[in-house]
Amino acid sequence: MCRWAAYLGEPIYLEDIISRPGHSLVRQSHGAMRCHTPVNADGFGIAWYGDRAEPGLYRDVMPAWSDPNLRSLTATVRSHLFMAHVRASTGTATSRNNCHPFAVGRWSFMHNGQFGGYDGWRRSAEVLIRDDLYPHRKGATDSEALFLCALGEGLAEDPCAALARATARFEALARSRGAAPHVRVTCAFSDGERLYAARYASDDQAPTLYHRWSDTRGGRAVVSEPLELDEADWLEIPQGSFCVFEGERVSVTPFAPQPDRVAA
Amino acid sequence: MCRWAAYLGEPIYLEDIISRPGHSLVRQSHGAMRCHTPVNADGFGIAWYGDRAEPGLYRDVMPAWSDPNLRSLTATVRSHLFMAHVRASTGTATSRNNCHPFAVGRWSFMHNGQFGGYDGWRRSAEVLIRDDLYPHRKGATDSEALFLCALGEGLAEDPCAALARATARFEALARSRGAAPHVRVTCAFSDGERLYAARYASDDQAPTLYHRWSDTRGGRAVVSEPLELDEADWLEIPQGSFCVFEGERVSVTPFAPQPDRVAA
Amino acid sequence: MCRWAAYLGEPIYLEDIISRPGHSLVRQSHGAMRCHTPVNADGFGIAWYGDRAEPGLYRDVMPAWSDPNLRSLTATVRSHLFMAHVRASTGTATSRNNCHPFAVGRWSFMHNGQFGGYDGWRRSAEVLIRDDLYPHRKGATDSEALFLCALGEGLAEDPCAALARATARFEALARSRGAAPHVRVTCAFSDGERLYAARYASDDQAPTLYHRWSDTRGGRAVVSEPLELDEADWLEIPQGSFCVFEGERVSVTPFAPQPDRVAA
Amino acid sequence: MCRWAAYLGEPIYLEDIISRPGHSLVRQSHGAMRCHTPVNADGFGIAWYGDRAEPGLYRDVMPAWSDPNLRSLTATVRSHLFMAHVRASTGTATSRNNCHPFAVGRWSFMHNGQFGGYDGWRRSAEVLIRDDLYPHRKGATDSEALFLCALGEGLAEDPCAALARATARFEALARSRGAAPHVRVTCAFSDGERLYAARYASDDQAPTLYHRWSDTRGGRAVVSEPLELDEADWLEIPQGSFCVFEGERVSVTPFAPQPDRVAA
Repeated sequence: MCRWAAYLGEPIYLEDIISRPGHSLVRQSHGAMRCHTPVNADGFGIAWYGDRAEPGLYRDVMPAWSDPNLRSLTATVRSHLFMAHVRASTGTATSRNNCHPFAVGRWSFMHNGQFGGYDGWRRSAEVLIRDDLYPHRKGATDSEALFLCALGEGLAEDPCAALARATARFEALARSRGAAPHVRVTCAFSDGERLYAARYASDDQAPTLYHRWSDTRGGRAVVSEPLELDEADWLEIPQGSFCVFEGERVSVTPFAPQPDRVAA
Repeated sequence: MCRWAAYLGEPIYLEDIISRPGHSLVRQSHGAMRCHTPVNADGFGIAWYGDRAEPGLYRDVMPAWSDPNLRSLTATVRSHLFMAHVRASTGTATSRNNCHPFAVGRWSFMHNGQFGGYDGWRRSAEVLIRDDLYPHRKGATDSEALFLCALGEGLAEDPCAALARATARFEALARSRGAAPHVRVTCAFSDGERLYAARYASDDQAPTLYHRWSDTRGGRAVVSEPLELDEADWLEIPQGSFCVFEGERVSVTPFAPQPDRVAA
Repeated sequence: MCRWAAYLGEPIYLEDIISRPGHSLVRQSHGAMRCHTPVNADGFGIAWYGDRAEPGLYRDVMPAWSDPNLRSLTATVRSHLFMAHVRASTGTATSRNNCHPFAVGRWSFMHNGQFGGYDGWRRSAEVLIRDDLYPHRKGATDSEALFLCALGEGLAEDPCAALARATARFEALARSRGAAPHVRVTCAFSDGERLYAARYASDDQAPTLYHRWSDTRGGRAVVSEPLELDEADWLEIPQGSFCVFEGERVSVTPFAPQPDRVAA
Repeated sequence: MCRWAAYLGEPIYLEDIISRPGHSLVRQSHGAMRCHTPVNADGFGIAWYGDRAEPGLYRDVMPAWSDPNLRSLTATVRSHLFMAHVRASTGTATSRNNCHPFAVGRWSFMHNGQFGGYDGWRRSAEVLIRDDLYPHRKGATDSEALFLCALGEGLAEDPCAALARATARFEALARSRGAAPHVRVTCAFSDGERLYAARYASDDQAPTLYHRWSDTRGGRAVVSEPLELDEADWLEIPQGSFCVFEGERVSVTPFAPQPDRVAA
């Protein structure tokens, strides 16, 4: 499992989400409260959008709490749209290329979850990546493979449907060749304009997902865990949902991958 | 705080102490049970004695649990005398030079504890390092400074007295310029022949220290926490003790630094 | 391109090959003389055989010349059979999983060379890896893929034929989908008993390969470049050769992959 | 020795200085042409000024050419005032805390040069650091010590005089306790408004220093080596000079530390 946080709104310093809140993402890297692994210290990453279409990307293998570069970057860089992730490996190596977010062109993607028995069907998952996207396969994680598969399924045209198809394909593999729990996915991704998130599981244990609009900031945080323990107004996204965040607007629709309809 | 483990006896693979036991040092790096910080992931290190007088030294900044080099090294290298340490920083940076063990010539040293307010009197602590030893000051930790100070006080001639004088000097600084708790020290060190350990605090909270002889291995483990949770025969070293381990023999004598007798 | 060195014989400290000679491998990491890239600083690695069947493996992403762990390890560990590699990336990332040597079970492998246009047919190369070996695919290099392919072709049964078939498959891919030069391979590998090496290219530019028996050491060094600039008695292995080193014996036979006979 | 580059003017992407020019700083990291060490791969760093008084700081231990974080950061971040440095160690460890630039409050500093025999009088150099600045002493380099000494000498009040006094103190130490060449200093530093640089040596071998105004960019580059090999209009700063760059203006005055006037 992992923890992540994203933001969309008026430009703020990245530290306002990543390290300054009482239960910030950095705090969650050694003391997460709503997942099985309180320690998420197998690397971290941030992706932020600025003047250019492609996001900036900074990822490293140290725990997020001890990296002075992360501290300085998040205190210096402001962005209207960014993501941050702290990783707890479910098996693959601690290397930069296995750290989230992943980025291809203007798209960035991060994930918290697992696919049952992935080690046993990694190769089959990689087959789902479209040829022209395979050069972007840098690491070995299920998360990066899911992202590349979803890109190939048409993330740019219909984000919800493309992610659902990709998730279905992975779930079909997990069902036929893997192990339970077959799929648990709580992910966020962006093209630099909208922020998308999904929460889904093949059982009833989808990783948590919350969001909250702040009038003070003029922006919305979308997170694994509320960033302040004493704020009661965080909204929980129900399992089986797909979210589109654009400006102040939030759209939540059902997210129901259909593994039976794809070939495993 | 930190956790450490040392071994003296018939040559064994380092993994037999560091990663294979049920509550091994690697396990303690993310789930220590007898200290305030269950997570000890700000770097790690090992020092082992082989054919040469000087120990081998391997230290890195990742959590011990995720380093494949550590896994391979400890599965390949055997030693009759070695130390291993997982670090939880009390303030200084996560860098290799701040990782334990430290080594100078044939001596190695590792430490678990803290000196109150050290940040405010680091410079004064460094003044206590003898000129000819100052080139070995590579990092910024209190632990390395204590080791170098103790070397200068005559660690080679009278280990117990030298460490007591060094500790007293540090305690005097903490009392006059630092903050409570003034001193908590549980350390181990070696010249490649004997293994030494001390447990001491200016309050009653000295970090834990245990040891156990194994007939199976023909050797003794000296550790922060017992390596198996179901072994009842680990012996706890009382606070205020200095230990000498040599072959099967153990000598435990009082360790009473006298900060009033040294100039702060 | 890269540089590497291997040793077989009476146990010696690794530093006797890696860092102490006048033109040691570490020296070659910033001043190689017989290849296009004098700087080989995109990571390094060592594999050494000790008491166990599986080799120890230490790899990191810094230049070999600046790593204190490497310095200490090579000064402490002795081995009768070991390999060391300094890397100059031909495109893939500088990460531990892309550093040589690679190891699977008791086998280790390292490589110096290139496959033309590999970026464009990496996926096809990975298809050549046998299913049961795919979990060992950790990085993205052509070298690791070649090794895993060769293992699947029967490296344990007939090392020369297996490597030739794997090389032929890669050459066929480079010819049909890549770019010239199609193949340049100078590699070494071992099962912990014998040391094997091959030198081959589809043009006339195979990377250099030398060896020399030392009566002083009672062992043989097999290297990319002679370890001393003033020793005239290094023997150059001609292009198109496969070598088996066992004890004092050397067997050199033709190495002629047949890309026309494999399906691309 | 090392190589560095700085920029002051209209905001540009950092990559426009650091990696895009034909003889960019990244190019110089493996192929510098106007210094003794063509390879400058012992870590790197950047400091850039944005909205806040304190600069952002990113430093790491890999060669600059192979770091994807650096590539992404410099392609995403724009700044009106920034510095970048590639390091060739003259003895101290390759660690982040030994990488330039160094930053204290709003000040940043980077250096290319050496102090003869520094290893032998590091401790005396550290004594020159004012007590209140000593907590900023994180690494072991002469460069960081010079910066902290200069800050204590009044860098904020009179940059030229303060740097001259600090340099004189270091030169006095090198003369009395070190080795020739006593001092070679080509450094740059900034408070976020002006950019300062100095070129000085106790012999006639001060590291090179050039600058050039670009009408296209509306800014000035100040560098160790011209960023394009075919641009003839780079201006060389003579040895013994102190430069102030502010907007389009350049002020060059003599820089003449007086080691005879300070107590060694």
